[in-house]
Amino acid sequence: MNLSFDTTTLREGYLSGKFTVSDIIREVLARIEAGDSKIWICVDTADRLLAQAKEIEEKDPNSLPLYGIPFAVKDNIDVAKLPTTAACPDYRYFADEDATVVAQLRAAGAIPIGKTNLDQFATGLVGVRSPYGIPGNAFDPQYIPGGSSSGSAVSVALGQVSFSLGTDTAGSGRVPACFNNLVGLKPSRGLLSSTGLVPACKSLDCISIFALNAFDAQAALRVAASYDPSDAYSRPNPLSLESPRRAYRDGMTFGVPSPEQLQFFGDENYLNLYLQSIARLEALGFKKQVIDFSPFLAAARLLYEGPWVAERYWAIQDLIKDAPEALHPVTRAIIEKGIDGTAVDAFDATYKLQAFRQETLSLWESVDFLATPTAGTHYTIEQLEADPIQLNSNLGYYTNFMNLLDLSSVAVPTGFTPKKMPFGITLIAPAFHDEKLLSIAHKLQLASELRMGATEHQRFEPVLPAQWDSAPIAVCG
Amino acid sequence: MNLSFDTTTLREGYLSGKFTVSDIIREVLARIEAGDSKIWICVDTADRLLAQAKEIEEKDPNSLPLYGIPFAVKDNIDVAKLPTTAACPDYRYFADEDATVVAQLRAAGAIPIGKTNLDQFATGLVGVRSPYGIPGNAFDPQYIPGGSSSGSAVSVALGQVSFSLGTDTAGSGRVPACFNNLVGLKPSRGLLSSTGLVPACKSLDCISIFALNAFDAQAALRVAASYDPSDAYSRPNPLSLESPRRAYRDGMTFGVPSPEQLQFFGDENYLNLYLQSIARLEALGFKKQVIDFSPFLAAARLLYEGPWVAERYWAIQDLIKDAPEALHPVTRAIIEKGIDGTAVDAFDATYKLQAFRQETLSLWESVDFLATPTAGTHYTIEQLEADPIQLNSNLGYYTNFMNLLDLSSVAVPTGFTPKKMPFGITLIAPAFHDEKLLSIAHKLQLASELRMGATEHQRFEPVLPAQWDSAPIAVCG
Repeated sequence: MNLSFDTTTLREGYLSGKFTVSDIIREVLARIEAGDSKIWICVDTADRLLAQAKEIEEKDPNSLPLYGIPFAVKDNIDVAKLPTTAACPDYRYFADEDATVVAQLRAAGAIPIGKTNLDQFATGLVGVRSPYGIPGNAFDPQYIPGGSSSGSAVSVALGQVSFSLGTDTAGSGRVPACFNNLVGLKPSRGLLSSTGLVPACKSLDCISIFALNAFDAQAALRVAASYDPSDAYSRPNPLSLESPRRAYRDGMTFGVPSPEQLQFFGDENYLNLYLQSIARLEALGFKKQVIDFSPFLAAARLLYEGPWVAERYWAIQDLIKDAPEALHPVTRAIIEKGIDGTAVDAFDATYKLQAFRQETLSLWESVDFLATPTAGTHYTIEQLEADPIQLNSNLGYYTNFMNLLDLSSVAVPTGFTPKKMPFGITLIAPAFHDEKLLSIAHKLQLASELRMGATEHQRFEPVLPAQWDSAPIAVCG
Repeated sequence: MNLSFDTTTLREGYLSGKFTVSDIIREVLARIEAGDSKIWICVDTADRLLAQAKEIEEKDPNSLPLYGIPFAVKDNIDVAKLPTTAACPDYRYFADEDATVVAQLRAAGAIPIGKTNLDQFATGLVGVRSPYGIPGNAFDPQYIPGGSSSGSAVSVALGQVSFSLGTDTAGSGRVPACFNNLVGLKPSRGLLSSTGLVPACKSLDCISIFALNAFDAQAALRVAASYDPSDAYSRPNPLSLESPRRAYRDGMTFGVPSPEQLQFFGDENYLNLYLQSIARLEALGFKKQVIDFSPFLAAARLLYEGPWVAERYWAIQDLIKDAPEALHPVTRAIIEKGIDGTAVDAFDATYKLQAFRQETLSLWESVDFLATPTAGTHYTIEQLEADPIQLNSNLGYYTNFMNLLDLSSVAVPTGFTPKKMPFGITLIAPAFHDEKLLSIAHKLQLASELRMGATEHQRFEPVLPAQWDSAPIAVCG
């Protein structure tokens, strides 16, 4: 069976009776079985998955927006009855309940297949920092898969599932999308509930979505997004349905960093692909404007140099105090530093960040979105392991600032290097412009004519027009 | 001359030619000269003030919303050509420029008379922590004036100026209003620029307004409020003109803490006056609803127990490291603790605060405002000095949470104790509901029939209907 698992193809097959949900679950399990065992930390049992399939088969496909859609869950997000490890065996616990986002997807007919590998405690952009091994990049296992949501990206790219949940604190939902030819949506902070998520940086974490195309990302987003008062960082969408700022328009203006603010770490292929991508946006009718990218870069540096690593320490403080050797050595080296800073340092960095944030605000009066590379280059595992911290840091050049500055963003594939490795750009806008970015991502995907992930398929349905069921806002600011 | 300095009376006199701006400046200086010297740290020279008066006299009174209105400025806010001390002689510097808010008031025709005394570095709610002495409470100098904006409150209460600027991080703009029978507006965070303000807790500080009545507070607010991109914490008002949440309506619902959540520290007079005030709100047609005040109280405790004192340390770190003896001993004891906490502690407290904030959000779906006492009791200087830190802390019971939870609030006078000492309540709403609260404060003042401050005058003009020149918002959230 060489069936595409994009949601439109599956829905058509279900509606026409070409196959059942049980058929698809069996196919999912066969594909996983035949593939790289390092992608998954845990796959649910065939019995339980087929029982879920049977339950769904009793319902009307038209009543469930994600009827019979198989998805993967990064192993720092709870799925009921499965263990959560965050890629640290000593941290492992059994989840009694689904994370809120998983529960909503399940209620919409989607089926969580299992838990995917990641950089331990979601710390890293590389995908090699896990005691469960390195999931092979979907195009060439000599290259890093990207992280921290490595398994979630690779599983979708290989067509094992339709979409997956990752997380994205500093780039973990975008870098692996770039390296595996996927759409990677980092939703606005607070748009998806974090209940049931192992925190990395609690004030910044977002559950993210990997998909084969923008339409599928949107389908998952619409089900997954909801205001959750039990999550302290959850936020209702404050933009009204009619806000012109959230809607797609032909001919919107996009910003690009000035040439000297771009950084490709010597990678001419990525530079050329970026320039081609920008040219494609212009050919699509979007208007380019060179902007000053420096406050974004300064905010990105702040994440590495500043106190936010204290949040990572906070999240695993019991473990790191009692059993530091339980951690991956690189992860441990990074997170242990979190205890060093003072509260005075933390506020000092917060003030600097606030100034950068204020500085970026006026930009959005003249541009509708930014378009940057998702990553400046792509390393092989060998390269990475020679200098694991610095090269990881290089990969965050275009991603680290995103949540600090409260932005929404979508990584979208736009091309391949001469070695047939994928490249993509990231579309960026203020918080709650997620669907606007997905609509642009769709136009780009359509124009790029690439296959989806590492599959042989192409299917790019137009995203639906903006239409959020956002609750009215009680409080703003 | 027994003239009321409320802005309506002054404007009428200017328009009718009854007196000139120069006349009023001379009267201001005479009143200050005749009064308590501890109210002011510095008064501008008569020559310079009269020169400003002459300049204003050349203009059309109808062209300047605050034509010839004298005001006082707390000595942690810059006024060009005057020293700023923050009540610490060793911190003293000459300001080259007006703070943004002062510049805007000046451009509207108002005249900054000088700089008023305060609890050093705006740390305290008492008004006794200053090397420049204790400004006498406007009703009885045996009682504390309240702080930290002690001089700003007393100068208005005694009719030396029409209004004054204070600051309010944890209650400094409301407690002295309560103790001196004034309206004390703590504007929404970021609504007034902080450029030119000596920070206390930079992430929380607000410049505040003391006035004889709600109309005057509104007049000053409308001039003072503006989005200032050079202030990292400045925010444009996100509520549209039409938002029903910001407008006054008869019969709105107000919340009160449940009886066991009220705390009067044994002061039966304040308890009775609070109950009378609530009854008056009901008589005015507002609907009472008992609410759970616990997340507010928990947030208030967090301010004292949490890491925010690190912000105070940050603000004066050079001074406190190099010359700790330059500080008032109580202020030093408090601020020195700011260096103790770790960044992990700071994030931990931030998470707790975020949870309390989320918990309070749903409340605003059922109530339009809260009404609490402004303070639970009023101490004499003698009482206070016996236990300066704990009794200061008691005074923050109803005020400390306000900026942490991003609320707007107005302290409004509502009665007098049998000993003829003032009492007032605080009206509370989400950020950017400032004018709604002022409109309620006006109704209360009118119904209370109290004199204004410690003057013999009563004049309560209705506040103007909501009408903000708010800039359109580029980014929300």
